[in-house]
Amino acid sequence: MSPLLPTIESPADLRRLSRTQLQPLANELRTFVLESVARTGGHLSSNLGTVELTVALHYVFNTPEDRLVWDVGHQTYPHKILTGRRDRMHSLRQQGGISGFPRREESEYDTFGTAHSSTSISAALGMALASKIKGEKRHSVAIIGDGAMTAGMAFEALNNAGVAEGRLLVVLNDNDMSISPPVGALNRYLAQLMSGQFYAAAKNVGKQVLRGAPPLFELAKRLEEHAKGMVVPATLFEKFGFNYIGPIDGHDLDSLIPTLENIRHLLETDSGPQFLHVVTKKGQGYKLAEADPVAYHGPGKFDPAVGLTKPATPPKTTFTQVFGQWLCDMAEADPRLVGITPAMREGSGMVEFERRFPARYFDVGIAEQHAVTFAAGLACEGMKPVVAIYSTFLQRAYDQLIHDVALQNLPVVFALDRAGLVGADGATHAGAYDIAFLRCIPNMAVACPSDEAECRQLLSTAFEQDHPVAVRYPRGAGVGAVQPSGLEALPYGRGEWTHKGRGVAILAFGTLLHPALAAAQRLGASVANMRWAKPLDLDLLRELANSHQALVTVEEGCLQGGAGSAVLEALQAEGLTLPVLQLGLPDEFVEHGDPARLLAMLGLDATGIERSVRERFADLLDVAPGLKVAA
Amino acid sequence: MSPLLPTIESPADLRRLSRTQLQPLANELRTFVLESVARTGGHLSSNLGTVELTVALHYVFNTPEDRLVWDVGHQTYPHKILTGRRDRMHSLRQQGGISGFPRREESEYDTFGTAHSSTSISAALGMALASKIKGEKRHSVAIIGDGAMTAGMAFEALNNAGVAEGRLLVVLNDNDMSISPPVGALNRYLAQLMSGQFYAAAKNVGKQVLRGAPPLFELAKRLEEHAKGMVVPATLFEKFGFNYIGPIDGHDLDSLIPTLENIRHLLETDSGPQFLHVVTKKGQGYKLAEADPVAYHGPGKFDPAVGLTKPATPPKTTFTQVFGQWLCDMAEADPRLVGITPAMREGSGMVEFERRFPARYFDVGIAEQHAVTFAAGLACEGMKPVVAIYSTFLQRAYDQLIHDVALQNLPVVFALDRAGLVGADGATHAGAYDIAFLRCIPNMAVACPSDEAECRQLLSTAFEQDHPVAVRYPRGAGVGAVQPSGLEALPYGRGEWTHKGRGVAILAFGTLLHPALAAAQRLGASVANMRWAKPLDLDLLRELANSHQALVTVEEGCLQGGAGSAVLEALQAEGLTLPVLQLGLPDEFVEHGDPARLLAMLGLDATGIERSVRERFADLLDVAPGLKVAA
Repeated sequence: MSPLLPTIESPADLRRLSRTQLQPLANELRTFVLESVARTGGHLSSNLGTVELTVALHYVFNTPEDRLVWDVGHQTYPHKILTGRRDRMHSLRQQGGISGFPRREESEYDTFGTAHSSTSISAALGMALASKIKGEKRHSVAIIGDGAMTAGMAFEALNNAGVAEGRLLVVLNDNDMSISPPVGALNRYLAQLMSGQFYAAAKNVGKQVLRGAPPLFELAKRLEEHAKGMVVPATLFEKFGFNYIGPIDGHDLDSLIPTLENIRHLLETDSGPQFLHVVTKKGQGYKLAEADPVAYHGPGKFDPAVGLTKPATPPKTTFTQVFGQWLCDMAEADPRLVGITPAMREGSGMVEFERRFPARYFDVGIAEQHAVTFAAGLACEGMKPVVAIYSTFLQRAYDQLIHDVALQNLPVVFALDRAGLVGADGATHAGAYDIAFLRCIPNMAVACPSDEAECRQLLSTAFEQDHPVAVRYPRGAGVGAVQPSGLEALPYGRGEWTHKGRGVAILAFGTLLHPALAAAQRLGASVANMRWAKPLDLDLLRELANSHQALVTVEEGCLQGGAGSAVLEALQAEGLTLPVLQLGLPDEFVEHGDPARLLAMLGLDATGIERSVRERFADLLDVAPGLKVAA
Repeated sequence: MSPLLPTIESPADLRRLSRTQLQPLANELRTFVLESVARTGGHLSSNLGTVELTVALHYVFNTPEDRLVWDVGHQTYPHKILTGRRDRMHSLRQQGGISGFPRREESEYDTFGTAHSSTSISAALGMALASKIKGEKRHSVAIIGDGAMTAGMAFEALNNAGVAEGRLLVVLNDNDMSISPPVGALNRYLAQLMSGQFYAAAKNVGKQVLRGAPPLFELAKRLEEHAKGMVVPATLFEKFGFNYIGPIDGHDLDSLIPTLENIRHLLETDSGPQFLHVVTKKGQGYKLAEADPVAYHGPGKFDPAVGLTKPATPPKTTFTQVFGQWLCDMAEADPRLVGITPAMREGSGMVEFERRFPARYFDVGIAEQHAVTFAAGLACEGMKPVVAIYSTFLQRAYDQLIHDVALQNLPVVFALDRAGLVGADGATHAGAYDIAFLRCIPNMAVACPSDEAECRQLLSTAFEQDHPVAVRYPRGAGVGAVQPSGLEALPYGRGEWTHKGRGVAILAFGTLLHPALAAAQRLGASVANMRWAKPLDLDLLRELANSHQALVTVEEGCLQGGAGSAVLEALQAEGLTLPVLQLGLPDEFVEHGDPARLLAMLGLDATGIERSVRERFADLLDVAPGLKVAA
């Protein structure tokens, strides 16, 4: 049999296939996904888990006229392959290549850009109600994982959707796992749904009934309940006003397709919002990934025949690992320390902490808002909470940080991983704004370590304070500075004049200190390691301003309102008027790509910093001619 | 019988009363609340509704050792009166007086500062788990309204609490109303719980059974269900792992007290998280408030014998009303407009819009995150969403604004009411940070109208753009500028040189234009109405910088990262080096009080602006000596 996948240039081609061709196509698609990710790196387990669901959705629904909104979106490789991007999968997550997430600019089939969790129901409801207002007949489908269902905004959306009259289907892709293992009551409840006789009944009866057209097993069951006048319907999702159907096997096209066809019919007859519970397995069809879906969640390149192997040379210590080690050491030293993660145990480096201090470890699920206010509650009772959260996800808990932590001036430490550019994940995950959105909040402090040793020391400094402090550090490794073994802190709010030069002083915030130093060597300029975006080291700032003709600020964060902006404010408040060049992330969303290349592109490597300073302050530089760069 | 209330200086006094004295005390307390609020203004309906619940909680639980966390907190007047603050109620919400919300600095009984909705379960869970870690035996109680339950973070907290082993009680104070009438599936579900035979049974059987000690009606019911091996427990809250008890009458101390005593016993025996569903009536005991709880939600001063009366002179048109009128006019003109509010129909001025355009009006409940992403979904389909939201509540949807709206560059208009200081509600409600946290986001624009006419015009400008725009305006009325009747827009990103002077130019962002003009008259300075914090009018900025020796920026927003900071950045980017004085809100949380007095205190009235400019730029001012202010 000749392969089917090469004939599919769009879902319309898929819909021309016969039902019996779909499973062979799914098999080819799975192989393609595996081989493609093995070559490029990317998300694997989740994409292997959505192969049949993707085939079924595009087969039954009239995409792109009908709207699919994929929650989180890292499970959309099968969707991308079936929607005309098969030939571009080799460029996945690479600079200039296609994104690892759905993007509206990339395809009309990507109806909504996702990456942060739990937005899909809200977006799909908006689409459904827009269609209704405009008198269109299209359907909107949100596909959301069980992990993403724990975030509050998913419930906000259910609560709204349950009383709205739109053609909305929510597909719960229940794979019993977010990136970290699942936590919380909802997950336990879903497991109950799956494990009880309910599931068995649905599975067996479903097989027979679902093949025919109406009525669905669940529908019948529900009608029966109504006939009996029961006040309380069967499932949590029905309490929110949805017609709940499932759970069904999400790898069985013979269940998926007739069920989806029936649901489409229910939507077409305006029968209210529909909820389909599908059970899938992450890593499905690739034994190694099935056995360890966490390891295969987001692997680098590998040989599918061999699987993941240990790299020959041990990788450099990452900032994440520095944090993880510090957390354990400080927990050992101080029984008040508690560690909180919103479902990012691995990503935030808390595996060892959980193992050693289980009673002080809290994975609250994908629930950033709750994580921060929960920390505030712990702090009220004398605990010292450390909230480990990616910079980009702290955006989810901004009000809680302001209203519950900062306003009450509670000593919560925010360990902000992935500050700055993040590389392959792109703009959705960049931690570009934290300095700006944190330093405007009273009582907050923001530390920006320049290397691994300082990261550890500034975490200790943060932990010593009696008010909230954020310590921001980038994804990946730094320059490889040797960490001290102790828990000594650096002085609060103090920077350091690292390199003495003349004319121009470069004020570096964070890890760009190192390219700044390299640039300064060639420029004859001074460099200060400012360490704190808030509070600024005003003594150091005055000293630098008074002994140089111009200043340059460098940060891996947005220019608008960032650390450089804090320098401008402080200078004016001090009555110091001198030229300042601000270097940092521009006022635009930076796409995915290699972080070092992106930084270079933005002029934030040593060459770029040197060039920018020369362009702006050529007359102020005092360097030997031999060191000058050719124009 | 001599009055009881004057004898209650703390809950310990309350706990010395006999059970039969509690209802007379509650009656006195209700009268005190009514008379007190009638004198000071403040929240009324909600406080009349929590009188018995407050008495019962302090009677049964050992406060302050046991922790009460009041969600939103505007219903805590009975709590304040019973916890030693009876004599300070006359100073409620006034400068230097006690707050209208719980505050940790104010009393040890105020265990957690609240004001924004839906934080209580998270905070109380944090407290409960801190106690557990420390080996303490105290109980933590969150009291949350049905409106607040619709916010996602309440569900995040339930999901986490349902599997945590803390001594946590959640009291759902179900009064069938948030500030706006309730919406959404959850509310419909709660109504079902209350209206069905379930409620009737609980009410009747409860009356008999609850008086005795164990077992509770609900507990028995639950055990029976477990015995039957049912997979699915009875209520939504049990699905989250809570032991659900209720609904019971929250005005009946004979139900409340034995039920709470039983629950305390369950907590003492570590029986897992408890959920008590209490039904109360907003305005209870004051017929006028019962009949119209919305009108009596937050009244000004009034005569309790007469009730609210129409003021003799019609109040000035507020910015809220300007927005409401514009929304209707623009909706009339453009069928793509949809209006979205997170449960703030009245506060945001959308009553008329809902009446006239019900199909394009969406009250999504207290669900700011969903509101913004829902708007993004609507915008994807060609609608033009206008999200009406208080500046302080937009903090709740910050990530959604960044990730779902700005990154996709969708044309959503944010109508930010209550920007700047808000007066009696204090720091929790101040819209101090929006310019800073919005202008750092790519694709965003931020308009700051200086008066009512400009507010209308800039809303039209915002609506014309093909990217997100926020229009921020303060609480209350402006200078009374006559609004145009049409929908003409002002030019995008353009300010105006309003008053020509010499030496110093004052750049005003927003309504502080008017005190700035008054100050400038006396200073001989120039004034520009900048209108846009982002994009800045660079032409105007250059012109001003080149024709003056110094600039002054004025805004009712935080100094750190605010509009003044944007001016500093732009000047440096343009290579313009001159002294700039930034005036705005300081880096501290500003307490409640009269807005005009607060602005004066912060130096943001005409006198204060004049004084600050003279202090900083005395040598640059070109004024007649007679106009100089004595030093």
